[in-house]
Amino acid sequence: GGEIGGAVRGWSLVDAVSVRLGDTPVCEQVCQWVAPEELESLLELELPDTGESEVRLLQHCRQVIRYSVNTAHPRFFNQLFAGLDYHALVGRFITETLNTSQYTYEISPVFVLMEDVVLKKLRELIGWMTGDGIFCPGGSMSNMFAINLARHRLYPHVKQRGLWVVPRLVIFTSEEGHYSLTKGAAFLGLGTDNVWTVKTDGRFVPVDVSDTETNLLHACLSLSGAVPLMVSATAGTTILGAFDPLAEIADVCQQHGVWLHVDAAWGGGALLSKRHRHLLAGIERADSVTWNPHKMLMAGLQCSAFLLKDQTDLLGSAHAAGARYLFQTDRCYQPRYDTGDRSVQCGRRVDCLKLWLMWKAIGTRGLRDRVNRAFACTRYLVTEMHKRDGFRLLMEPQFVNVCFWYIPPCLRGGEETPDFWQQLGRVAPLVKQRMVVKGSMMVGYQPHGKHVNFFRQILISPQVTREDLDFFLDEIERLGSDFQPM
Amino acid sequence: GGEIGGAVRGWSLVDAVSVRLGDTPVCEQVCQWVAPEELESLLELELPDTGESEVRLLQHCRQVIRYSVNTAHPRFFNQLFAGLDYHALVGRFITETLNTSQYTYEISPVFVLMEDVVLKKLRELIGWMTGDGIFCPGGSMSNMFAINLARHRLYPHVKQRGLWVVPRLVIFTSEEGHYSLTKGAAFLGLGTDNVWTVKTDGRFVPVDVSDTETNLLHACLSLSGAVPLMVSATAGTTILGAFDPLAEIADVCQQHGVWLHVDAAWGGGALLSKRHRHLLAGIERADSVTWNPHKMLMAGLQCSAFLLKDQTDLLGSAHAAGARYLFQTDRCYQPRYDTGDRSVQCGRRVDCLKLWLMWKAIGTRGLRDRVNRAFACTRYLVTEMHKRDGFRLLMEPQFVNVCFWYIPPCLRGGEETPDFWQQLGRVAPLVKQRMVVKGSMMVGYQPHGKHVNFFRQILISPQVTREDLDFFLDEIERLGSDFQPM
Repeated sequence: GGEIGGAVRGWSLVDAVSVRLGDTPVCEQVCQWVAPEELESLLELELPDTGESEVRLLQHCRQVIRYSVNTAHPRFFNQLFAGLDYHALVGRFITETLNTSQYTYEISPVFVLMEDVVLKKLRELIGWMTGDGIFCPGGSMSNMFAINLARHRLYPHVKQRGLWVVPRLVIFTSEEGHYSLTKGAAFLGLGTDNVWTVKTDGRFVPVDVSDTETNLLHACLSLSGAVPLMVSATAGTTILGAFDPLAEIADVCQQHGVWLHVDAAWGGGALLSKRHRHLLAGIERADSVTWNPHKMLMAGLQCSAFLLKDQTDLLGSAHAAGARYLFQTDRCYQPRYDTGDRSVQCGRRVDCLKLWLMWKAIGTRGLRDRVNRAFACTRYLVTEMHKRDGFRLLMEPQFVNVCFWYIPPCLRGGEETPDFWQQLGRVAPLVKQRMVVKGSMMVGYQPHGKHVNFFRQILISPQVTREDLDFFLDEIERLGSDFQPM
Repeated sequence: GGEIGGAVRGWSLVDAVSVRLGDTPVCEQVCQWVAPEELESLLELELPDTGESEVRLLQHCRQVIRYSVNTAHPRFFNQLFAGLDYHALVGRFITETLNTSQYTYEISPVFVLMEDVVLKKLRELIGWMTGDGIFCPGGSMSNMFAINLARHRLYPHVKQRGLWVVPRLVIFTSEEGHYSLTKGAAFLGLGTDNVWTVKTDGRFVPVDVSDTETNLLHACLSLSGAVPLMVSATAGTTILGAFDPLAEIADVCQQHGVWLHVDAAWGGGALLSKRHRHLLAGIERADSVTWNPHKMLMAGLQCSAFLLKDQTDLLGSAHAAGARYLFQTDRCYQPRYDTGDRSVQCGRRVDCLKLWLMWKAIGTRGLRDRVNRAFACTRYLVTEMHKRDGFRLLMEPQFVNVCFWYIPPCLRGGEETPDFWQQLGRVAPLVKQRMVVKGSMMVGYQPHGKHVNFFRQILISPQVTREDLDFFLDEIERLGSDFQPM
C-alpha cells in the first residue's frame, strides 16, 4: 500500500535548494527583474491533472529560486529582515520535517518546553524576572494580542458580551507607530477612528510626552466619554528607526492606570547590546512588548514574540475556549503544559526552535556582537555619506535605519523651492527602478509625512562589509547622477 | 568582515535532519514519552552566553528530534494532520531558504503570482470560476477573516467607527462547529454570547435546518434587536467528521440575506474526490470558505486558504491601511500585485509553494487518489471493527473520522447503567496512557456532549496500510482488555 518512492523522488529535488545555500558572492544579482505578466508565463504556474516528471519538477524549483529575490544577499537593504543565519535555517528545516503544532505537550513536548525557555530569555533582556508570553504569526498579530489583553484586563466581560456593553475605547500611538495598530483596531472592532495619534517633533520623537499625552487622555475622558485603553509606544519605528521616550510615557500611563504596550518588533534587537540598550530605557515598565527576532536577530520569517508582565494568566482568560477535544484534563501530565488555548489560533507553528538553535550556536555574545556590528556599520555609512556631495540625511540615525535623499548634480546648489522637492521626489523611484532592473542591490524608498520620496537603508546582516557600503553609495551615484528634471 | 564559516558550520547540522527523513519503518516508536519535568532536564534548554561547539549542537538537534512526536509515522492517527509529503517538504525547505514575506511583488514576485494560481485552483474545486482569497496562519484566522468580511459587507463603517455604531451582531453555527468561531467572536469584539449554536441530531447533523435556523434568525430579529451576521456551516466537523447540509443552509441564508461561511478546514479535501464531493454539495453557494490543505492534502503546517466569492476587493476594503512605506504606487508595476495590504498581517509567510510543488508532482489525480484511499481505508477499519467484539461506533463515519468506544471484556454484556458509562469513560485515558508510554501508535480521545471519553481515529496518510489498521485494532485490545472497573 501507500505511495512507494515518494520520498526518494521528493528528495532528489533537495539539489535545487542548494542553488541558494552558502553565502552569496556579491557578484551575483540580488534580484532578476521580470514584469508580472512576463513572469507569469515564464513560471508555468498552472496546476496539472497528472503529476510531472522529476526533471520538470527540478526545473520548476530552479525557476522559483532564480526569479525570487535573494534576501540573504549582502547588498539587500530593502526590508527589516535580511541575511540568513544557517543555524536558524537548520532549525527551520527540522521544524518543517517534524511537522507538528504547538498546542499540546502530547503532540509537541519539546517545543512546549522550549518556547517557555526562549520567551523567558527574551523577557530577561527586557528586565522581567517573571511574566508570560507566546509566539504569534507576525508582529501585527502580537500587537493585536496586546490590544485584546488590555481590553480584557479593563473589561473582562467584553469577551462574553461584546463591545456594546462598554464605552468607546481609545488607543494612543505616535504618528510614527506601525500601521498594525490601525489594522488591529479595525479587526478587533474598536474602529480606526479610535486610534489617536500623538504628534512628533522633527526628529520624529514625541514632543513633551507628559504634556501631550496627558492632554490627550484628558480630552478623551472629558470631551467624548471615551476611555483610554492603551498607549502603544514604539521602540524602533518602521521608517526612521526612532525610539519613543519609554520612561516618560510609562510615567503617563502609570498616572492614568493605562496599559503600556511597547512595539519593539524592530528595535528589540538593541536590548542585546549593553552599548545601545539605553534606547529602550523604561521598557521594563511596560505591560506588554512585541519583539520580532526574525528582524534584527535573523531568526527567519516568522518569529514574533508577544511578551507580557502579567502573571495571572491573562492570555488564558482572554483567549481560552476550553475545547475538550484538544485540551483534556485527564491526561498523564498537568494541563498547564497544554499551552495552545492561550492563543487565538488553534494549530500554531513552531517558531521557537530556529531562534533557540541559533542562540545555542552563537550565544548571547554572538547576537550582541551582530547588533553592535550593525550599529557600527550604520555609523560608517553615515560618515561616508557626510563626505560625499549629494547625500542628505533626514535625521541622524538612532538605530540602523539610514533615511536619506540622493540629490543628483542637476538639483544641487539652487534654491529649495517646491519644484525642487517635487523633482527630488522623482529621484528615488528612478534609481530604484534602474537598480532592480540591474539587480545590483535593493533598498527601499517611500514618501513620509511632508517629505517627498527618500531612501531607507536597513543594515542587519553580518555579511555586509564596508566594501558593500562603499558600493552602495557609488551605485546610488551611478544610477542617479544623470537624473534630469521634468 | 562578517562571520566567515557560519554557513559551513551550520550546514554540518543538516545531518541531524536526515534522522527523520525517508519513510518511517513501522517498527520505530511514534513517540518517546518523557514527563515534562524530566524532559526539561534532558534537553538542556538554557540559552548560553557563549556559543556551543558543533558536536554539542548536533547532539541538541538529535535530542530535539528524538523526543518529538513522529507525526509522519504511519501509526500516528492523533490529529487532523499526519504523514509527510516529500515534495511539499522540499517546497517548505525552499520557502525557508528564500526567507521572504508575501506582501509585495517587489520582494516576492514568484509567490505573489503563485498564491493567485493556487487559490484559483482551490476555488475551481469549490465551483467558483471567479472570486478572491488569501492564505492565513491557520483555520482559526481564516474563520476570523470570514467574520470580519461579513461584518464589513453589512456595516462598512464599523472599520472606522467601531462596533458601537451598529446593533449587536450574531453568528450562527452548529454545536459541532469549531471553537475558533467562539474565539473569533471574542477577539473581534462581538462576544461569545453572540455565537448562537444550532442543535444537531444524534448524527450530529443539524436537524431540519430551514426550520431551526429560520426560527433562530427570527428570534434574533424580534426578541433582542440583534442582527444576524453570518451562518458558519461546517464541512467536516472536528470530532465526528460530519457535514452540515450546505444546500439547505444556503437556502436559509439566501432568504435572509445572511453571509454564508463554510468552515471546510477539515472536510475540504473531499472536494478532490468525484465519489465523495457530494458531501459538500451546495458549497458553491457560500460567500466564503475556509480550507486547510495542511490537513487532508498533507501540504505541511501551516497552509490555510481563506476563499471568497466576492469580486469587489472586500479583502482590500476591509483590511487595507495603505501604509505608503510598504505599498508604493509609483513602482514600475501595477499596485494590484502588492497583495499584502489585503491581510491583517504585515509580514506574511509564503504558504503557497509547498502546496504548489506537491500538486505539480502528483497532479489533481494523485491528490484525488489519496483522498479516495483514505475513505477506503476508513471503510476497511469500520468493517473490521464490526467483526470484533468490544468496538462500538458513535456513528457510521461520513468522512475519515472513526469515533468509537473500546468496551473491555469486563464491561461487556451487562446493562448499560450510568456506572457502566462512567467506567467506560476511564478506558480511553488508560489505553492512551499505555500507548504513549509504549510509543506504539497515537490516537486521540475526548468526551463530547453527553458522551463519555471515546477514541477519534483519523486516517490521512497514504503510508497507512491495512496491516497498520489491523495492528491498530489489535493494539487497542492488547492495551485495554485487562481494564478493571474502579
